Amino acid sequence: MIINTFARNLYIMKPSHIEHIGIAVKNLEESIKYYEEVLGLECYNIEEVKDQKVKTAFFKVGDTKIELLESTDPEGPIGKYVEKKGEGIHHIAFAVKDIDNQLKKAEEKGIRVIDKTSRSGAEGLSIGFLHPKSTFGVLTELCEDKNK
Amino acid sequence: MIINTFARNLYIMKPSHIEHIGIAVKNLEESIKYYEEVLGLECYNIEEVKDQKVKTAFFKVGDTKIELLESTDPEGPIGKYVEKKGEGIHHIAFAVKDIDNQLKKAEEKGIRVIDKTSRSGAEGLSIGFLHPKSTFGVLTELCEDKNK
Repeated sequence: MIINTFARNLYIMKPSHIEHIGIAVKNLEESIKYYEEVLGLECYNIEEVKDQKVKTAFFKVGDTKIELLESTDPEGPIGKYVEKKGEGIHHIAFAVKDIDNQLKKAEEKGIRVIDKTSRSGAEGLSIGFLHPKSTFGVLTELCEDKNK
Repeated sequence: MIINTFARNLYIMKPSHIEHIGIAVKNLEESIKYYEEVLGLECYNIEEVKDQKVKTAFFKVGDTKIELLESTDPEGPIGKYVEKKGEGIHHIAFAVKDIDNQLKKAEEKGIRVIDKTSRSGAEGLSIGFLHPKSTFGVLTELCEDKNK
């Protein structure tokens, strides 16, 4: 029985919490002002992720972060997104354990994965994306803090 | 000093956590299957909100809920959204205290509010929306559990 339960748990992704919500914005400074002055949240970090061609601003709400994303290049993923769809919620990121195995298992279940193995994201996390065509329209990030 | 701090706290919305993320889907049953079988989350409630012309399914991840929304009427808000934009993340809801005062203060700060006073939402919460034109593209819900 113990072995069965263990095997079952290994099989299940079961994220512990929503690590962050990514929001595409045109102007980081103006949108930070809204999140601070209207919602009363505090921007605790601004970071450029060159690989993703974005500048990001972070806020904490409960156990989830709001990550505002301003494109630094119209040809980058956020630049293209804003051009096509306008500002708005871009993705949800779930905190998982054993991310590479989770990406592999998702693919085995027929999910189209953008990243077959994890790569480095903002704040030192290991990240990987599931394609919105397989996830009912929601660009879905898995992420793991391997330093924890 | 005590009075000043008190006045300052009253002025700030500062949500305690993200109460839920609303996701518009075409088919509740199929998308529930994805959230359960791939992400390993458990659907703990299905509820129809007649006022909003939706059927909703709830999952819990950390201190946040995922709320899947399937329209029961093509002329309802989710029906129109899916027709125009397709499936995807529809709104974020922040848990606040003193919701009617927060809606009033947001409006005083120049935010376009959809609800000037709160109304009843799913799961017995009091809810009110801020318009995405004022919130950098994010349909933003405030909600309060007045029974707590």
